[in-house]
Formats: sequence, structure tokens, C-alpha cells
Amino acid sequence: MGVGPGDPDLLTLAAVGAIEAADLIACPVARSGAESMAAAIAARWMRPHQRIIPLLFPMVDAAEPRRLAWHQAADTLAAEVATGQRVVLLCEGDASLFATGSYVLLALQQRHPDCPCRVIPGITAVSAAAAAANWPLALQQDQLLMRPCPEREDQLSQALDHAAGQARVLALLKLGRRWLWVRQVLERRQLLESSLFAERVGWPDQTLRPAQDVPGGVRPYFSLLLIRQSWPEVLP
Amino acid sequence: MGVGPGDPDLLTLAAVGAIEAADLIACPVARSGAESMAAAIAARWMRPHQRIIPLLFPMVDAAEPRRLAWHQAADTLAAEVATGQRVVLLCEGDASLFATGSYVLLALQQRHPDCPCRVIPGITAVSAAAAAANWPLALQQDQLLMRPCPEREDQLSQALDHAAGQARVLALLKLGRRWLWVRQVLERRQLLESSLFAERVGWPDQTLRPAQDVPGGVRPYFSLLLIRQSWPEVLP
Repeated sequence: MGVGPGDPDLLTLAAVGAIEAADLIACPVARSGAESMAAAIAARWMRPHQRIIPLLFPMVDAAEPRRLAWHQAADTLAAEVATGQRVVLLCEGDASLFATGSYVLLALQQRHPDCPCRVIPGITAVSAAAAAANWPLALQQDQLLMRPCPEREDQLSQALDHAAGQARVLALLKLGRRWLWVRQVLERRQLLESSLFAERVGWPDQTLRPAQDVPGGVRPYFSLLLIRQSWPEVLP
Repeated sequence: MGVGPGDPDLLTLAAVGAIEAADLIACPVARSGAESMAAAIAARWMRPHQRIIPLLFPMVDAAEPRRLAWHQAADTLAAEVATGQRVVLLCEGDASLFATGSYVLLALQQRHPDCPCRVIPGITAVSAAAAAANWPLALQQDQLLMRPCPEREDQLSQALDHAAGQARVLALLKLGRRWLWVRQVLERRQLLESSLFAERVGWPDQTLRPAQDVPGGVRPYFSLLLIRQSWPEVLP
């Protein structure tokens, strides 16, 4: 289930209901002992009688450690469900969009096809950033492309060229250390002023600023950028 | 504020709080006297002492009637806010994504720049459909493109070709009467089985089926299609 990007008020009623009804709450963590961001967002509704378990999903490039982590998570959750426990797996943002939960769901479907599963959607960081900044994501015939930030400058230039021709707003996720050169590309194209930089959306220390106000440098992994290159012909 | 695509349990706590605190609730309608879908979704939290007003947004191609409707809506809302009323404008789905609310917000910013505004995001029909069908929208290096369904077959073919090369999942909105020829394009490309057809997501009469199970024909305006042409290399 998705808990949204940060602000606990952005949980849905369905998400709150599932947390309150749970016997076991599973929280993804990237390192052993690390605090789970999803658990911090959901903390308001977690109760002392509920068991909380961290599920370790290492952030590595190699395939096998990741596969193993998805298998182990699926086996752990299915075993609990089989004993009659009501189990939720928390997930930042939306549970279907760039979410570890999607991999766990695929592993459950393969390894435990009889385990009943229900996915509860969540507010994305993209929607939350747009709302917080009064930023229309897509109007009328616009398009919205959500994607990880390209790895190289030529890929970004190509994506911007193509987006401009299609009235396509770009949402570039996982900006992180790429911000240094991404900023330069936007500056050359005079897009800095009309792009929105967002970081830790919904958390007390969120950053939501026109990209021109954010100096070049390494930013957190989960920072994102919204880029609109044009507006529709018919506006108020 | 976004009320999500249909299921009242997909409202956020922030949305419920705003409805409960409102003196005036404005509901968009496409025709005079028509029932507002957004109001039907929010009905559970609306109270007898609250004033409910419909705001008419005609669904026409001509620019001027639409501009006039946005101006009138902005003027009406700003006048109420100026007298101290707490006002919410309901909006299906997310308030920033293909939403009439975005146009009203732009009109408010132009015509009533001192009127305080806050946008509350909502669950999109795309996220809700994916969740309800256990459908991973985007994994790892995937991309997700949300756009109105193309008007012509050659435009759809081009979008599919480009998406295939980019590991891009397509969410085609406002499918409606285009389903007849869209279905034929998917059939020729053998994509019917791996595409999800969704209609009235979250309503009691929702349709969520592989596209191959939906016969060609005219479907409601708000039907949508999710098309995944490939999967990432690393899977469970």
C-alpha cells in the first residue's frame, strides 16, 4: 500500500484503514537498522500491539541480491498471511510506480499464487509537488512523462527536444547527483525559470522552488524536477 | 482539491478535512442540471449546513465559452473567499492532471492574485486502475507516459514505436469512441493480451479487464488503457 511521499495527511482513507486493521506491518529499508521512511509517514496510525518488521531491499546494481531480497520478502509475507495474520507492506508514494512493492507483488504472484493480495494506491511525489507549488501538471492535450532522470546529457537533450514537439511535461525522478549537469542543460535552454525543483515533498524540510533558485551540486536521491516547455493555446 | 477517480475510500485525509471544514462546496458539471461526479464521490462528508453550488464548464471545442466559464468560476469563488467563506472546489482524480481545477487556478492567479489558494492532490484513475488490477505501472528504468488517446491511427503507431524503444508504459486517457480503431492497432501488434482496459475505476460498475476481453465499440469518454510492451531485464 502507498503512503504518499511524506505528509501523513496525504494517506488515503483506504490506507489508514489497512494500517489500523493490520496485525503485522512490513516496512522496506535500504540498510539493516536504517529508519524506514514509509514507517515514519504511517507512524500516526501504528499501534503498540502490532508487530513491525523491516524488510531489507539493498540498493545495488547487481541482479541477484535484489532478486533474493524480493523472494525473501514474498516468502516472509506469504507465511504470515498463511497463518491468518493481516499483513500490510508499506510503500512510499504510489504502490505501482517505481515501487519496491511492485517487485514483491510479482514475486508473490510467482511463488505464492494463492496468497490473497490487494494493492492500495498512493499520492505520488509528482502530484504532491505540483499541488504544493500550484503547478498544473498537464492541461487538455498536454502529456506527462514520468521517468528516472537520464544518465547522460545527450539523452536529456533528446528527451527535451522530443517533449517540446509533443507538448509534453517532463517529470524527472531520482535527480540526485545528476543535478549539476542537468542544471547546465536547463540554463542553456532557458528553462531554469519555468522548471520546478522538488525535494522531500511533504516533509517539514521540503524544498519546492523554481530550478533557477537551486544552485548546482549533488542533491538527495529522491529529488525531482518538473519541466514545462510550452503552454496550450487556450488559457484563461 | 482532488477526490480521486471514484471510490470514496481513495480520498486523502487532507481532502476529507477540507470538505468537512468548508462553508461552500463548488462542484464542476458539464451541463446545467447534470449530476456532479466529484460531488457523488465526496457526498459521504458533505453536511446539510454547507452550501453546494454547481459550476458549469461546457465541454466544447470553441475557446471563448471555456475561457468565460473559467473566468466566471474564478470570480464566483474569489467573491466567496473575500467574504470570509471557506470554499472548496471538488475535482475528479488529481487536481493538477487534466483537471478543470487547473484552469480555474490559473484564472484565479490572473484575476484575483490576492485570493489564497491551496491545491490538495488526489489519486489518479491511472494509479487506481493499476492498483485494482495488480498492474505494476513502472519498474526501475521504465517510463510512464500519461496522455490523451491520439486522434489518429498513425499517431498511435508512432507513439507505440517510440514507447517500445524507451521501455515506456503508455496510459492513454479519454479513450471513448476511439476504442474501435485502437483495438485493431493493438490486435495487429499482439498487444491486446498485455494491455489493461479500465473504465469507471472505483465505481461499483467499474470495468478492469485485459484489452482482449473488451469488444471493439464506443466506450465512455473516461475509459483508459494501460499498455506495457516489455519488461525490465531484472525481475523476481
